[in-house]
Amino acid sequence: MELLQELIAIDHTSPQPVYLQISHAMIAGIRQGKLRKGLKLPGTRGLADLLHVNRMTVVAAYQELDAQGWIEMHARQGTFVKAVPPLLAPTGITRQPLPAGFPAAAGFSYDKKRILPIATSNFPSTGKLIFNDGFPDIRLAPIDALGATIRNLSRRTANRKYLQYGGAQGTLPLRETLAEFLCDTRGLAVTPENILITKGAQMGIFVAGSVILKPGDDVIVGTPGYDMADTTFRQLGARLNEVPVDAEGIDTARVERLCKKKKIRLLYVIPHHHNPTTVTLSPERRMHLLHLAAMYKFAILEDDYDYDFHYASRPIMPMVSHDSRGHVIYVGTLTKTFAPSVRFGFVVAPADFIQTATYFRKMVDTQGDSFMEHAIAELYRDGTLTRHIKKSVKLYRERRDHFCDLLQTELRDHIDFTVPDGGMSVWARFHADLKKVSARALEKGLVIKDGTSYDTDKIKYNAVRLGFASLNLKEQEQAVGILKAVLRDEAVRG
Amino acid sequence: MELLQELIAIDHTSPQPVYLQISHAMIAGIRQGKLRKGLKLPGTRGLADLLHVNRMTVVAAYQELDAQGWIEMHARQGTFVKAVPPLLAPTGITRQPLPAGFPAAAGFSYDKKRILPIATSNFPSTGKLIFNDGFPDIRLAPIDALGATIRNLSRRTANRKYLQYGGAQGTLPLRETLAEFLCDTRGLAVTPENILITKGAQMGIFVAGSVILKPGDDVIVGTPGYDMADTTFRQLGARLNEVPVDAEGIDTARVERLCKKKKIRLLYVIPHHHNPTTVTLSPERRMHLLHLAAMYKFAILEDDYDYDFHYASRPIMPMVSHDSRGHVIYVGTLTKTFAPSVRFGFVVAPADFIQTATYFRKMVDTQGDSFMEHAIAELYRDGTLTRHIKKSVKLYRERRDHFCDLLQTELRDHIDFTVPDGGMSVWARFHADLKKVSARALEKGLVIKDGTSYDTDKIKYNAVRLGFASLNLKEQEQAVGILKAVLRDEAVRG
Repeated sequence: MELLQELIAIDHTSPQPVYLQISHAMIAGIRQGKLRKGLKLPGTRGLADLLHVNRMTVVAAYQELDAQGWIEMHARQGTFVKAVPPLLAPTGITRQPLPAGFPAAAGFSYDKKRILPIATSNFPSTGKLIFNDGFPDIRLAPIDALGATIRNLSRRTANRKYLQYGGAQGTLPLRETLAEFLCDTRGLAVTPENILITKGAQMGIFVAGSVILKPGDDVIVGTPGYDMADTTFRQLGARLNEVPVDAEGIDTARVERLCKKKKIRLLYVIPHHHNPTTVTLSPERRMHLLHLAAMYKFAILEDDYDYDFHYASRPIMPMVSHDSRGHVIYVGTLTKTFAPSVRFGFVVAPADFIQTATYFRKMVDTQGDSFMEHAIAELYRDGTLTRHIKKSVKLYRERRDHFCDLLQTELRDHIDFTVPDGGMSVWARFHADLKKVSARALEKGLVIKDGTSYDTDKIKYNAVRLGFASLNLKEQEQAVGILKAVLRDEAVRG
Repeated sequence: MELLQELIAIDHTSPQPVYLQISHAMIAGIRQGKLRKGLKLPGTRGLADLLHVNRMTVVAAYQELDAQGWIEMHARQGTFVKAVPPLLAPTGITRQPLPAGFPAAAGFSYDKKRILPIATSNFPSTGKLIFNDGFPDIRLAPIDALGATIRNLSRRTANRKYLQYGGAQGTLPLRETLAEFLCDTRGLAVTPENILITKGAQMGIFVAGSVILKPGDDVIVGTPGYDMADTTFRQLGARLNEVPVDAEGIDTARVERLCKKKKIRLLYVIPHHHNPTTVTLSPERRMHLLHLAAMYKFAILEDDYDYDFHYASRPIMPMVSHDSRGHVIYVGTLTKTFAPSVRFGFVVAPADFIQTATYFRKMVDTQGDSFMEHAIAELYRDGTLTRHIKKSVKLYRERRDHFCDLLQTELRDHIDFTVPDGGMSVWARFHADLKKVSARALEKGLVIKDGTSYDTDKIKYNAVRLGFASLNLKEQEQAVGILKAVLRDEAVRG
């Protein structure tokens, strides 16, 4: 009886019902071996008195323990502990107090180093100026329209079916709508069978890479490059071959030389507004790459995340729209269009590849949010997204022009940059040490990365992407003002 | 000039602007080598006459081609093709007509068999009665509340930050809310650091499996088992060791025997309403498993997808809440609570494991829908989800009772089943051949699986899950009526 009093501490301020506090404490006691199998428990009245609770509370607790199989209640003889603590004895996990919290480290073995670490940022602190990596301005996101569309859809019974489990490939209405959109904007003659809906472009890269790559396969990437993609290929066991990116994009002559030397399985390329350098791959190099892929039988993973945001002209049509041989896997995203946290991307590829990729996608993530996919399809169909893209492109072009003017006027002695044709950031090489600049800027309330994530073993770029799209004109002036002050100080010091 | 007339077919009914039709057709001509480098193109007036379009349309088309780098415009000399078709010549992909559509098969090599095929169902045809696998009734889903919450959140500026890129681990508000919910419902003393938000339980299984398993590792699963999990472990290169599931769940004595024979890396178990058999793992076996995990140093992947839907009593607390050593990775889901297409799941594990898993999750899928995560957290906090769970449990309990009464009254001579403690389906073993039953039922308008997906090489179960939760009482009667007629016919035939 004393043992029970010691085991069961009731907290009347807890949101947990008292009867559950009692049953949980007794389960812990049984599990720890303090309440041994066969132990006769006090009657409900006795325990109620002991704990100063209503008898019906103890009855509920015993019923709970009985239903869960921890105790046996016999009409005449009384109530007995049923579970078998000796099972626990050999390892010595009995007789220990319940842990204060969940353990911090896993007790089983796994090789942490097998998973490559990658920056997993949290939300940037608010109230600060931030040069992000080139993200859209979330203040423009048509999230209210999305909420309204979800409500409207939910009221039409026929749409309720999109709440049930659907296909791993994505809903047919979204794939149909996207096929039309891709044809109108990118000259792509695709059917819904050529499309896999993903959560953002990254899932497309992961899924495509997983289908194509075996450990030890050779992959070509540009340098400087997009570290999320590079890390993903490394994680999948691929060997990375880095080819320089110059003013016309990835150097295809070097790609050809590599192809002559070794079997290349995959080439990863960002044709519009390359990440990080923002350069656009020239038409000649695009054709050269298609030619090389057909000749050396490798796959091209064309990551066209930024296609819709081109300011100088219509963007160059993607390689996939010229690919009569089926060598290109095209990855795109709506996260730049809508908002980064509204996760929709797509993979366009030959139908047989899409089917295989769909199997894999289902293992990764059973399916997408089909109801949300249906809502997004609606927003395409009723023109909301097209209007939003137009409006954003106009605004971002103004912001690019204003920002590049500022950089030219205020920082031309401190950085080198080229005006990007599109996208949401400027690739700026700094004369002063970016690590110091980044640290000093933070003191003055401006977040700017130190650019070390772009460096390779051999090359230190001392450069960073300055995202301008999510800063309005006034914020741009403030940010550049801070940067100017920091760079002037550094120049004096240097 | 004739060549251009032949190349450029203008469709005035197309939604694509005419100037783009012209530029796209000329790009195709350049790409095919029909318009060779250095070719002098007609003046804008000449081409406009030829094509019967406004001269400004041709000006726009030429500007487009120039901006994209396909042609060169020289003030006095004229306009010339710039790109270099000979690059394409060697492989013979020149001089071909543009493909009518995208190729159906990939031109690069990949091993289709490396990705294990898995059923990728589409939406079941409507207007039919369906015995699904045990899905919630989407007619109940609080989707309207979700839409309203999204709209409300979007109007408060502070919430807009959840539209930007966030953390791969899931938003802090949702992890905090979930930590409280898991403590209240499952006695789990976890912090937000112990939680990774995923898209549904399947992503949790995939991510956890990817972190733990190396090719060749031994995994224990139950049989009959959950094919999505089994296929995922196989895909990750694991060897599966099948242990029978009986009326108390997975046979832990057999598990112990296996541990003595070989190094086990991972055990996968569904403690509540095991899929497919619906049995609940007994407390003694739970303790035995924890003991074995500590002794033989393997990880337990506890898939508690159905915890919130227990009808007989409070559900037994999950193993993870007794795991003082950090051997259990706990996977749960909100898809059963809310709606299958609203994809939210979670992984609970020691903090070091969660950090490693977060790296991997970021490669799979940069992050979740943070705005939606924030909305879901709101729906927990304001009580909407708790009320919805209560309401659903009450309704599904009634549906279970009614359904099991029906099965007992109408089909007792044709099937064997046990009333499940919870969940959304009944595991029914059929006397007649299920393949035939499934085919005949479909003719009469009832969809019921043939159960072959549960069979192993050695065992044919001739059993299937009869999902009752998404059928109201009248639909249950209709479905059982059809099944009865089919089974009576089969019995006469047989």
